[in-house]
Amino acid sequence: MGATGIVGSEILKILEERRFPVKALRAFASERSVGKSVSFAGRSVAVEVADPEAIRDHDVVFLSAGATLSRELRASFEGSRARVYDNTSAFRLEPSVPLVVPEVNGQELTADCRYASVPNCTTILLTLALHPLHQAFGLRRVVVSTYQAISGAGAQALEDLLQDTRAHLEGADVAPSSLAFNLIPRIGPTLEKPGGGWQTGEEDKVVAEARRILGVADLPLAVTCVRVPVLRAHSESVMVEMEARPSLEEVRSVLRGAPGVELRDDLEGGIYPTPRQASGIDGIHVGRLRFEPEPSALSFFLSGDQLRKGAALNAIQMAEQQRQGGGVA
Amino acid sequence: MGATGIVGSEILKILEERRFPVKALRAFASERSVGKSVSFAGRSVAVEVADPEAIRDHDVVFLSAGATLSRELRASFEGSRARVYDNTSAFRLEPSVPLVVPEVNGQELTADCRYASVPNCTTILLTLALHPLHQAFGLRRVVVSTYQAISGAGAQALEDLLQDTRAHLEGADVAPSSLAFNLIPRIGPTLEKPGGGWQTGEEDKVVAEARRILGVADLPLAVTCVRVPVLRAHSESVMVEMEARPSLEEVRSVLRGAPGVELRDDLEGGIYPTPRQASGIDGIHVGRLRFEPEPSALSFFLSGDQLRKGAALNAIQMAEQQRQGGGVA
Repeated sequence: MGATGIVGSEILKILEERRFPVKALRAFASERSVGKSVSFAGRSVAVEVADPEAIRDHDVVFLSAGATLSRELRASFEGSRARVYDNTSAFRLEPSVPLVVPEVNGQELTADCRYASVPNCTTILLTLALHPLHQAFGLRRVVVSTYQAISGAGAQALEDLLQDTRAHLEGADVAPSSLAFNLIPRIGPTLEKPGGGWQTGEEDKVVAEARRILGVADLPLAVTCVRVPVLRAHSESVMVEMEARPSLEEVRSVLRGAPGVELRDDLEGGIYPTPRQASGIDGIHVGRLRFEPEPSALSFFLSGDQLRKGAALNAIQMAEQQRQGGGVA
Repeated sequence: MGATGIVGSEILKILEERRFPVKALRAFASERSVGKSVSFAGRSVAVEVADPEAIRDHDVVFLSAGATLSRELRASFEGSRARVYDNTSAFRLEPSVPLVVPEVNGQELTADCRYASVPNCTTILLTLALHPLHQAFGLRRVVVSTYQAISGAGAQALEDLLQDTRAHLEGADVAPSSLAFNLIPRIGPTLEKPGGGWQTGEEDKVVAEARRILGVADLPLAVTCVRVPVLRAHSESVMVEMEARPSLEEVRSVLRGAPGVELRDDLEGGIYPTPRQASGIDGIHVGRLRFEPEPSALSFFLSGDQLRKGAALNAIQMAEQQRQGGGVA
C-alpha cells in the first residue's frame, strides 16, 4: 500500500534485489494513482485502489501511504493471516506494536507478531550507532543535529527541489521557503516541547522512538532536525556522554563490530561519512570520531540512506526476520 | 589586498554601501589577478600586484588574501600610518593583536591599535548569540553543529558547486567529493584534538577564537563543522547549558536587545532562521528557541551572512569604530 510513493517504489526494488520469495504481488495506492502501474520482476503491475478487504488477504503487507490510512486499515487486519509492516508513524508509540530496527531490538519482533512498526528514518540511522555504544559504555546523554535529505518529504518535494535548483541556476527567483541552496530547520508540525518552547514533529519522533528502541525511557536526548538540499541520504552530527570512559580505540572496536555500521573514520585520509557515498548502502557510515576533553564526550558524524535502511530496507529486513523465524544476518 | 577575491569584492561593495569616506582606493591582489580590474563607486580600478611598500602607505588596509601573505606583510606595516584589518587567520590567536566582533568585544579595539584581526566567519556569527547569553545567564557549556555555505571556501569553490549542480541535474556523474546535493563534514586541515582523535582546522578555530572573544579561556565548546550546498549564509545548531535557569521569555528578551541579533522565533508561524533569508543581512537571525528538559539546556538555530557579518562587514565595522573613536551603532 503506497506502491507509487517514494518508499513504496524502494520497497519493490529491494524485494527484487534481495530475492524476497514473492509468489504474487499486488500494488495498492490512493485514488490519485489509479491507472498507473509499477514494475516488479520485469512485469508491469497495475495499481489498485486501497480496499481493506483486498489488502488484508495477503501474507505480507507493507504500508507506506501515511499515518491516517494506516489507522483506517488497522482494524481490517484483525483475524487475517497478514503480517503487516507499517512505515508510517501511526502506531510507533503504541506499546502493543513492536517498533523495530532488526540490528538493535530484533528480539522484540516475535514470531507471532502480526503488526509491527518501522521507525522514523532519522531514528533508525541514529539507533544503529547509539545501541552498540549504549551496550558497551552506557549512554548518559545524547545531542543530535540532523542534515536530512529531501527524499524524506516524498516524491513531490524531491521534484520541487530539483525544479527550484534548476530555476535558481537560471537566475529565476525561487520562493523564500524553497530548499534550493537553502536549509529549513523545521520538519513536521509544531508541538509543545517539554522543558519550554516548541519543537517539530520530527524532533519529537526521534526522541520518543529512540528511547523506546534503545529501552531507555528517560534518556536525555536533544535533537534539532534540519532539512538540507541533499537528495536521499540523511546525516547526523552526534555527541554522546557515556558512563564509561573508553579510549577512542575501544569505541572504534565496538562500532566496527556493530551490525549495520561501517566505520569511515580517517579524517587525514579523506575518509568520513557523506550522504553521496551513503546513498545506496544498507547500513550507516560512521566517522569523525573524537573526544571532547571536558566534560568527557564523544562526537561523531553519520550518514545513511534514508530510503533504504531509513525506510524500505528496514521494513523488508523485519519481514525476512519473521519469515526465517530468527534474527537478521 | 585580495581585492578580486570573494571577501575582497564584498568589502568594496560594503564600503560603497555604507558610504565609508574613501578619498582614494587602490586594489591589490596576487599575480594571478594582474590585468584585472575591480569596480568601486562607479569607477574601474586596475588591480595592482601586492607590494609591501605600496600597501603600507595607506590609512586603512583590509587584508583578505590568505594567512601566508598576511604573515609576509606584517613587518612592513611597522611604523606606517596604516590601520590594518586582517581577515585571515594569521594572527587571530596572538595576544597582542585584538580579535574583534564590535558588538561583542569592541572595547578591545583601542584607538591606538594599528593591526587587528577579523575572526573566523562561523565564530563571529556564533559569538553574536553567545555573548548576550553569557552576560545574562553565564555559559557553562556549548555544543555546536554548523551548516556552512560554500562562499567560505572562496570564489572558485562557489563556481565549482554551481557547475557540479548543473552537471548533476543534467544526469552527469560528479566526483564523490563534490558538494553538489551533498555534505562535506570536513573544513580545513586535520589537527589533533585535545581529548583524543582528530578535528578540522575550522573546528579548532571556532573553539579557540570564541573562547578568546567571549573572554572564557576554558569554556567547554564542542564544535562539528559541516559544509552544505548553500551559497552564502552559514547556519548553526547550538545547545547551551547556563549557570542561571531563565525562562524562555527572559532568554528572548535578552536576545531581542542584543546588538546584531534579530529574533525570528515563531515555529508555528513559519518564522525561523534560514540561510536564504539571512543572505544580505548585517547580523544574525536566531530562532527555534527551546529548552531541553533534563539536564536543563537551551537549544537554538542561527543563520548569518558569511560574507557580510562573517567577514567583510565585520572588518568595515572595526574600521568605522576606530575612525569614530568609539563603539559601533
